[in-house]
Amino acid sequence: MNNFEFKNPTKILFGKSQIEKLATEIPPNEKVLLLYGGGSIKKNGIYEQVTKALSNFEVVEFGGIPANPEYEVLLKALKIIKEKQITFLLAVGGGSVIDGTKFLASAALYKGEKPWDILSEKIRTEKGMPFGTVLTLPATGSEMNSGAVITRKGTKEKLGMGGEGLFPQFSILDPQVIHSIPKRQIANGLADSFTHVLEQYMTYPIDAALQDRFAESIMQTIIETAPKILGDATDYKAASNFMWCCTMALNGLIQKGVPNDWAIHAMGHELTALYGIDHARTLAILTKSHYTYNLATKKEKLAQYAERVWNISEGTLEDKSKAGIDKTEAFFHSIGIDTKLSEYTNDYKGTAETISKSFIKRGWDGIGEHGTLTPKDVVKIVEMSY
Amino acid sequence: MNNFEFKNPTKILFGKSQIEKLATEIPPNEKVLLLYGGGSIKKNGIYEQVTKALSNFEVVEFGGIPANPEYEVLLKALKIIKEKQITFLLAVGGGSVIDGTKFLASAALYKGEKPWDILSEKIRTEKGMPFGTVLTLPATGSEMNSGAVITRKGTKEKLGMGGEGLFPQFSILDPQVIHSIPKRQIANGLADSFTHVLEQYMTYPIDAALQDRFAESIMQTIIETAPKILGDATDYKAASNFMWCCTMALNGLIQKGVPNDWAIHAMGHELTALYGIDHARTLAILTKSHYTYNLATKKEKLAQYAERVWNISEGTLEDKSKAGIDKTEAFFHSIGIDTKLSEYTNDYKGTAETISKSFIKRGWDGIGEHGTLTPKDVVKIVEMSY
Repeated sequence: MNNFEFKNPTKILFGKSQIEKLATEIPPNEKVLLLYGGGSIKKNGIYEQVTKALSNFEVVEFGGIPANPEYEVLLKALKIIKEKQITFLLAVGGGSVIDGTKFLASAALYKGEKPWDILSEKIRTEKGMPFGTVLTLPATGSEMNSGAVITRKGTKEKLGMGGEGLFPQFSILDPQVIHSIPKRQIANGLADSFTHVLEQYMTYPIDAALQDRFAESIMQTIIETAPKILGDATDYKAASNFMWCCTMALNGLIQKGVPNDWAIHAMGHELTALYGIDHARTLAILTKSHYTYNLATKKEKLAQYAERVWNISEGTLEDKSKAGIDKTEAFFHSIGIDTKLSEYTNDYKGTAETISKSFIKRGWDGIGEHGTLTPKDVVKIVEMSY
Repeated sequence: MNNFEFKNPTKILFGKSQIEKLATEIPPNEKVLLLYGGGSIKKNGIYEQVTKALSNFEVVEFGGIPANPEYEVLLKALKIIKEKQITFLLAVGGGSVIDGTKFLASAALYKGEKPWDILSEKIRTEKGMPFGTVLTLPATGSEMNSGAVITRKGTKEKLGMGGEGLFPQFSILDPQVIHSIPKRQIANGLADSFTHVLEQYMTYPIDAALQDRFAESIMQTIIETAPKILGDATDYKAASNFMWCCTMALNGLIQKGVPNDWAIHAMGHELTALYGIDHARTLAILTKSHYTYNLATKKEKLAQYAERVWNISEGTLEDKSKAGIDKTEAFFHSIGIDTKLSEYTNDYKGTAETISKSFIKRGWDGIGEHGTLTPKDVVKIVEMSY
């Protein structure tokens, strides 16, 4: 096991009727900016629950944060924060709204001239404006971590940021919100959280026995829960397991002490930036090619995964590892997610080269857990995903 | 899954050479009370590493905190805290030293007259004196939770306390400290952490799928690691897995959203108070009787445990649940721990009645996850453990 540091101070309030606790979780006398997305919260009753709980606070609203939160839109919210002297941010939404709120928490206290520098110059946020979240779409785990990914439409960039100052003060997880989520987005949440686990697990063995088993536990639970929650979004038991898996998949716990990959995400972000493909689906597109291309360095963990998660006991190490890859692709198909780029766009030729060039431009000369996947490797992996 | 709240702000520094980070983890200008136990840290090099890292702080020492930290001893440390105007506590030890330090963190800021009231009156500690820990004996999980158990020799009482103010600011976990731990205490740590998981898991099914799998993961890892670490305490891989299992077994994560039992601990504490039997061994004494006596209400989880943790696939639900109990007893034996009270004392007759009476005296008329185990049931369970 590698050395590690772990700290996650976010308070989780999980279960039915937790939204009303906003009234006491936000410190008294804060001036709150309520942030949300496309307005679905006004149709499913969450907006009413939230505003009722906030009745003792001065609240300003900012709606319209899009999926893949856009820098240009967020700058408008930043202006409001400064003009209205906001002191506390409340994100009500999924990963996009929460990530956008994290950018604002950082930018609100940032002393530099161009907030984009936080992303392009990889400036860590040690202290941000305090914020809480009400999660409406389980998927990204952003509700219990200190990272965010922000998109800049003008330059087709999608970059990450983070830092200790970006943990939510609290996050409210009421599995009942899942009732009204479209099936397509539930499938995205399943694929996104599943791939988060893979990126922290499917590397090389390092004798971190408990982290391995925790990662396998999350994947097993997602696999068991997927047909239930897709079959009936009002199934509270399935909803609560789905929601807690998404949070645990990316709250830092399983990534500690072990090598991390994140190559699938690095490539996937480019597909979203280029074609607007849902984040989770970009991951599903790249998973099989990535693991097949890197079979030599990942086969021990792939075989362990095949054995423990998919109960594959027959065959050589290589047989098992390939069977694990196939099972993963079949899982994506089982939840209605296509796994080839050509199923999402006709305009896919040249994508591999485009992505490779943008990696070179950013100086990303080696990604993956060994830092050895070059832009040339990226070309091959992306081409295998066409 | 039940509703729950979860927050654990303790920072973990895990791995080799982490002790030197004390120099920066303790805020500057704090006046530190360094607390430790019987002095083994002066023989194994830990004391030197700690004092070197503390060279920029004003440090007062208090050694001699015994296993099952005693109220009477702790009162002497409390006097020093007040006289020397200590502002930060540093526990260097196992669960006893850390628990004792938590009592002091609470008592130092307590406004009442008798600090024992914190225990006897179950007063929650919302704010305590800040403290950190250097763990020297993995077992209790106290390094990453907000609970403590304190013993009062004079009255043969052993009571719990807790509250949000009792999370360590940081805990340093260097698996290398395990090198010098006697085999007997390593076995205790294995049994203690294993039983912690059982107490939070072996109840009734509540569809908390991920919590179940996490609990099973910890137990599987302890079972796999036990022969390795008992065979060679310098095996760093085994040591690190053992250490991280002990922490994760009782840092609050797996107990959230599920019913908790803790009847084995409630009864076990009495055996320690009466006979001075090692805490972990009291748990091993009571486990088989408790689960056998409560088979009717626990058989679904016992069978699930037998299947998933011990790979028992044959037989009826009842067969499997009994096999799970037998495997647990065999596990204790495999690590050299006796499981009958009569193997620890000849003076065991009447113990069941004595424990039952002390429960009645405290008004504990129903323990366990249903709160339905009466003092009469306790008599039977303890008698089955003779």
